[in-house]
Amino acid sequence: MTVHLVGAGPGDPELVTVRALARIRACDVLVYDTLVDSRLIAEAPSKALLVSRHGRDQDDVNDLLVRYGALGLDVVRLKGGDPFVFGRGGEEALALREAGVEVEIVPGLSSVAAVPGAAGIPVTHRGRADRVTFATARDEDGAEPDYDALVAAGGTLVLFMGLARAERIAEGLIGAGLDPSTPAAIISRGTLPDQRTAIGRVDELGVLAEGMPTPALIVVGDVVDLAEGITGVRQTVMLGASSR
Amino acid sequence: MTVHLVGAGPGDPELVTVRALARIRACDVLVYDTLVDSRLIAEAPSKALLVSRHGRDQDDVNDLLVRYGALGLDVVRLKGGDPFVFGRGGEEALALREAGVEVEIVPGLSSVAAVPGAAGIPVTHRGRADRVTFATARDEDGAEPDYDALVAAGGTLVLFMGLARAERIAEGLIGAGLDPSTPAAIISRGTLPDQRTAIGRVDELGVLAEGMPTPALIVVGDVVDLAEGITGVRQTVMLGASSR
Repeated sequence: MTVHLVGAGPGDPELVTVRALARIRACDVLVYDTLVDSRLIAEAPSKALLVSRHGRDQDDVNDLLVRYGALGLDVVRLKGGDPFVFGRGGEEALALREAGVEVEIVPGLSSVAAVPGAAGIPVTHRGRADRVTFATARDEDGAEPDYDALVAAGGTLVLFMGLARAERIAEGLIGAGLDPSTPAAIISRGTLPDQRTAIGRVDELGVLAEGMPTPALIVVGDVVDLAEGITGVRQTVMLGASSR
Repeated sequence: MTVHLVGAGPGDPELVTVRALARIRACDVLVYDTLVDSRLIAEAPSKALLVSRHGRDQDDVNDLLVRYGALGLDVVRLKGGDPFVFGRGGEEALALREAGVEVEIVPGLSSVAAVPGAAGIPVTHRGRADRVTFATARDEDGAEPDYDALVAAGGTLVLFMGLARAERIAEGLIGAGLDPSTPAAIISRGTLPDQRTAIGRVDELGVLAEGMPTPALIVVGDVVDLAEGITGVRQTVMLGASSR
């Protein structure tokens, strides 16, 4: 019996993989993140035990997985996005291995890549960006990201968990030498029916963030300019004309 | 009628999304990359026209998609990985929009994220890497990557298309200031039944690459050290003991 660390993808339940769905449909226990779509949770067998991750810290979750796994049950740990891309799946896998429990990794679509795409922004594009850096806007201890490194990386930049501090992020990036007129976007609730995109310049990030619901991603770089041509929809928010 | 730019995922056909499979099963025309698994191609309706991308340059492919799309057919352009992560899907989407053809993007699992995971390497991990940079090891004109920028980015580094020049990449990264003892891995044919991983240090990349079949990814950073603990398998290649 195995604990399967399964990526649920970026939000839209049809963006789960075929293997992930098969694992959900065959599990004894489903331990799920709060952001996972209820339609995926409903795919578990009716006799399966459903356990929300809500209100548990990471150590609790690790203990829970080890306990159910050691009972010989087939456990699916269903995580938003991909377990190994800002998913803390590595910590869960190590805890399980150390306890002698078998682990399978079933990757999922990470929001950091799929959500810009859903807004018509390719994170790489010939002549615009040949590399992309994905980073947290707030590190594990709540500290500021390393703006110098993010700007030095020089390709497309995708930041997550940055909505509430978008203005501070703009200041940090510009302070580290980024051109204030660099195109930037905020994509709220990407791949979901109420997805919203606001597009402008990096020095307008504070305004672009106004009134946008979480979860949201910030995308910075010349690829952002492609969104209008690719989607055929103008998504620019005019400065001073926000909907708040 | 629409042209669907669909990601096929990293290789293993069960890592396709539910939506991608539905689009394949409903298409009139399937234009597919050579690396796409034949079992996914076989999911197209028996009356569908199957067109390999093999031997066509990007302009040819764009023209083909525009032509079939303009005929009012339901066209699936099935691409390895994700259309918008090193997939040149942006170019195809723009060509279609400019020709007035409707486009849908169906994201896929990008190899750059899913393949390290399949080898037990989380690209981010608490205390080891809070960011990750994905880059081509050879840019569109065959030029060297910007090693200074890649090292300055400071998180996990994932390079693709670098197998044949692994030793040169090691020199470039070390020349830009990377510690020669930084952990590094080469993952060949990730997520496929014949997946192979070689793990060592960045200054051993040339040896690690020996005898490894394409496609392959190079992963550099402290997260590489986690692979043994996560997979429970030792994958280190000893210097001087390569299988070639």
